[in-house]
Amino acid sequence: MAELFNFEMTATDGKARTGVIHTPRGDIRTPAFMPVGTAATVKAMMPESVRATGADILLGNTYHLMLRPTAERIDRLGGLHKFMNWDRPILTDSGGFQVMSLAGLRKLTEKGVTFKSHIDGSKHELTPERSMEIQRLLGSDIVMCFDECPALPADRDRIAESMRLSMRWAERSREAFGDRPGHALFGIMQGGLERDLREESAEALKNIGFDGYAVGGLAVGEGQAAMFDCLDYAPDMLPQDKPRYLMGVGKPDDIVGAVARGIDMMDCVLPSRSGRTGQAFTRHGVVNIKNARHQDDPRPLDADCGCPACSKYSRAYLHHVFRANEMISGMLLTWHNLHYFQDIMAGMRESIAAGTFDAWQKDFHANREMGDIEPL
Amino acid sequence: MAELFNFEMTATDGKARTGVIHTPRGDIRTPAFMPVGTAATVKAMMPESVRATGADILLGNTYHLMLRPTAERIDRLGGLHKFMNWDRPILTDSGGFQVMSLAGLRKLTEKGVTFKSHIDGSKHELTPERSMEIQRLLGSDIVMCFDECPALPADRDRIAESMRLSMRWAERSREAFGDRPGHALFGIMQGGLERDLREESAEALKNIGFDGYAVGGLAVGEGQAAMFDCLDYAPDMLPQDKPRYLMGVGKPDDIVGAVARGIDMMDCVLPSRSGRTGQAFTRHGVVNIKNARHQDDPRPLDADCGCPACSKYSRAYLHHVFRANEMISGMLLTWHNLHYFQDIMAGMRESIAAGTFDAWQKDFHANREMGDIEPL
Repeated sequence: MAELFNFEMTATDGKARTGVIHTPRGDIRTPAFMPVGTAATVKAMMPESVRATGADILLGNTYHLMLRPTAERIDRLGGLHKFMNWDRPILTDSGGFQVMSLAGLRKLTEKGVTFKSHIDGSKHELTPERSMEIQRLLGSDIVMCFDECPALPADRDRIAESMRLSMRWAERSREAFGDRPGHALFGIMQGGLERDLREESAEALKNIGFDGYAVGGLAVGEGQAAMFDCLDYAPDMLPQDKPRYLMGVGKPDDIVGAVARGIDMMDCVLPSRSGRTGQAFTRHGVVNIKNARHQDDPRPLDADCGCPACSKYSRAYLHHVFRANEMISGMLLTWHNLHYFQDIMAGMRESIAAGTFDAWQKDFHANREMGDIEPL
Repeated sequence: MAELFNFEMTATDGKARTGVIHTPRGDIRTPAFMPVGTAATVKAMMPESVRATGADILLGNTYHLMLRPTAERIDRLGGLHKFMNWDRPILTDSGGFQVMSLAGLRKLTEKGVTFKSHIDGSKHELTPERSMEIQRLLGSDIVMCFDECPALPADRDRIAESMRLSMRWAERSREAFGDRPGHALFGIMQGGLERDLREESAEALKNIGFDGYAVGGLAVGEGQAAMFDCLDYAPDMLPQDKPRYLMGVGKPDDIVGAVARGIDMMDCVLPSRSGRTGQAFTRHGVVNIKNARHQDDPRPLDADCGCPACSKYSRAYLHHVFRANEMISGMLLTWHNLHYFQDIMAGMRESIAAGTFDAWQKDFHANREMGDIEPL
């Protein structure tokens, strides 16, 4: 699989890296932000529009898709790419994180997890082997190991126990994944905020051997400062020559701080979810479009943004359609947010390549502080 | 205004007519179907996508816009076209029909109607003069007279009284509209299903003189057969050389039957509303995408349709995203329905021009009867 899937690092600046992940379905420019297409759609967006924002890869959620429409059905229909009309790379999570979030509805054993569907209460099982099978049926390009992770804060024993279970599951995931040319399997480092547990997890994963490595178990309640503390050392424990993926992150400044610490890939529902609830991220801060102060404002959301929402509509219009519960509100704000997130990634890629990432970061933070910032 | 706004009839076939309404904001090919953009958006659609379906003109609703965001605000922001990013013609209704639908919340006098907003209960007044002012503030290209109309069935006295009030209001609308080069004012014929009252209404309108004439008071509960009976004579009572607009119609076979009876323009929420509730109109009948029989169907909605929903997605996908309450469901089905309605209009325009409208109608009905029709 190394021939068909490989990571080419083209430049570094400090700990930050830029490059390209080559896959049979197309290149992924790194640092990469992956919009989330939970149920075979990036909510409120046509796939052509997601691509137009600059996205090279989407994330799909195993948990949601296995319940509805089911992995077997997607397989019969030709796979997730064809099903959702996205022919570029797709990364799927393992379902583990979302199943673990079903407190009270799930039971954890060495073998895996049994749980009840949030849709109809039906009983299901996820194991490393079943997660690999589902992700294969979906046709995922980047498959994630099945893992387990506690919300933070959690006590050290719980974190250690969970991490070691995840490492045994990583080995079973690797075994079950097999050899699939053109498809990659990523391991997931756990260990919470405990440096020695992160080290132990990294060693276990490297011994197994993966095509890429995720930093898991962050963005689960610990706050940005604690997350950055962990990212000050955790990425360095992973192989230099493989992609490093920080799962579930994040806000624009989380993303920039993560890239500065050596992360290559991220995903988050924030730009799409916020778009539907009327929050726009801009280079000048956050705009809550529902606020009455926008109702007569002829200015765009962000005069420096080239997305359709900013180039063709006023804040007054965006306010109006949000207040009127019109679908175009979520469509335009999601488009803007995804466009802005991809603009950040492009800016980081260019400045890392040029060796000017420090200056780029200073501008990024200065613009936000000068702006018309509304609290999230 | 005759120089800037005029109707050029290019061919007739039986009573059916085809032509072009020239306006400063662009040509409107007739017969024309106008998608409804009630609150300054065609629900679930970007305006570029509405245009891509073949729409030359949109309809905006005075009642909704006067309440939110208000006509004065839209005027301050540069008018409805700029506000909603649609630079082609817009027809606005007068608000009359929708205010009359607020049973119990409104009071009718010779002067006009007072009513309470469905949004916040605030009190408002609509008169012919105020309706003309609002439509001017919106920047409407085709302005409709303020009128009143009873739901059918209604007794003859009520219909006659209402029609005569509407004719007095038509005169006041004409007076208040004044002379606005490039903008048109359409009169609205009333009279229910009473032929002599329709005649009386047509004479009154012709004496006042308008740029176009609507057949109002239909599609209000009378059924297709009664509507067609009325359309067998009502359009003939109106000037041959002006556009004739049938308000609030309709289903595909309503539209075809209306054009066959001499109608040039129509509008209806049906394609967009049905799109959001999972109903697709196709040349082979109606598809209710929520039905379980579509869940494994790899076929498109309509193999003969070139819209994005039909060319890029399976029925199985459309079923899945409808069941999952994903916004892309409404986006794709609305796009399909609007595309199909515009395909019907294009087919009628071409066959009328070619003198083959009878054969086209036979094909239209035969296709629908051969198809996989699900009841609405």
